[in-house]
Amino acid sequence: MRFTSETSVDRVREQLFFLGEIPGALWTPEGGASRRPLIVVGHGGGRHKKDPDVVHLARRFVIEGGFAVVAVDVPGHGERPAVAEYNRIAADNQARVQAGEELAPLIAEFQAMVARQTVPEWQAVVDEVQRLDHVGAGPVGYWGISLGCGLGVPFVAAESRVHAAVLGLGGALGKTEDATRVTVPVEFLMQWNDERVPRDQSLALFDALASPDKTLHANPGKHGDVPTFEHDSAVRFFVRHLA
Amino acid sequence: MRFTSETSVDRVREQLFFLGEIPGALWTPEGGASRRPLIVVGHGGGRHKKDPDVVHLARRFVIEGGFAVVAVDVPGHGERPAVAEYNRIAADNQARVQAGEELAPLIAEFQAMVARQTVPEWQAVVDEVQRLDHVGAGPVGYWGISLGCGLGVPFVAAESRVHAAVLGLGGALGKTEDATRVTVPVEFLMQWNDERVPRDQSLALFDALASPDKTLHANPGKHGDVPTFEHDSAVRFFVRHLA
Repeated sequence: MRFTSETSVDRVREQLFFLGEIPGALWTPEGGASRRPLIVVGHGGGRHKKDPDVVHLARRFVIEGGFAVVAVDVPGHGERPAVAEYNRIAADNQARVQAGEELAPLIAEFQAMVARQTVPEWQAVVDEVQRLDHVGAGPVGYWGISLGCGLGVPFVAAESRVHAAVLGLGGALGKTEDATRVTVPVEFLMQWNDERVPRDQSLALFDALASPDKTLHANPGKHGDVPTFEHDSAVRFFVRHLA
Repeated sequence: MRFTSETSVDRVREQLFFLGEIPGALWTPEGGASRRPLIVVGHGGGRHKKDPDVVHLARRFVIEGGFAVVAVDVPGHGERPAVAEYNRIAADNQARVQAGEELAPLIAEFQAMVARQTVPEWQAVVDEVQRLDHVGAGPVGYWGISLGCGLGVPFVAAESRVHAAVLGLGGALGKTEDATRVTVPVEFLMQWNDERVPRDQSLALFDALASPDKTLHANPGKHGDVPTFEHDSAVRFFVRHLA
């Protein structure tokens, strides 16, 4: 793990790093060594680890919960090189949608393929970050919607260190099997008028989660219209389950 | 409005009253005259104005929000005399369910009938309570699930003084028209495995609400299993919209 920069703004320390080829950002409270919960944030499609929404949320988790937060670039995003195969598939999918195919199954298939790469990457990131004195091996949380849900469901299913997850803006297609292996508390966000995820697909993914403690939060509006009070709710959710 | 008792526990004043034939309870913060938001709480079927859940919630609204809270007995409940016609219909419905009829449409029809009596009753209660110096004519909220939703949707639809409502554990059947006249912020509770309200009926009622600001909170479990953290959420919801 190689740190490339460190800055500190309003009591939140931000460290940029590379773990092998994977560029990441780690946010922690200023101050000394202390074991604390770690939240992994999965960014949305076309976004990256330092997307303003990711940074805003990460800072809230640090300030309001005392958590450590880590986000890394998904392959083909942020500082990572384009992946020729992914680009080819994306272009191919676009053509298929224009020819009348449904979007949701194509997205599902694509995300499942990317997840086969990101799940072990994120596990390696948790391994390394939890070795740091100012993070330590505390409970892990996961926050990810949209692409962050598509990659997050298989991650949470595979990773027993994750104790609680905020997921959402994703459908059951291609994720049902992983969802049935998710048993930790989940807060699941859904946009009632999502133009990208069919309503019944969102409800089916929430339904498929095996967690006895899960809550669906549905709000009116399109895919990008998640109201900011859901961020307040996510902070409280992680405080309840990780702190 | 005739007050019959007044007690005070831990800075919350509780006054029992009759408005004509209607027995009610009013909870307010101890202290002098001050205009404050008023939350009307509608109790569940077979319950009453001083049901432990109602009192617990009312005290939280007073202590955490500084609100006034009023609850009255629904006809045939609590201190009110049995209503021969309602009892006849209830017995008749029980027989019809045993003979194989669906429960939900019978409940919907019954609640619509009771609402024709309770909507004007509750409006009169708000009129009178808001004349009191320690309540005043502030914004009104409504909290009611199950029977409290069946009676609450027509109340919120009819009453322009209501600025925000927590509703839920109810289906669209017989309430769709009223729901399309509800435009204030709503937090809508749903039990994912509700044995009394079919899942599609709950979703349809949430869908029918005309409110641009509405959030569905769905949790696993049966009709009576609403998790207590939804009470925390209700307090915050009313603080956000009424305070």
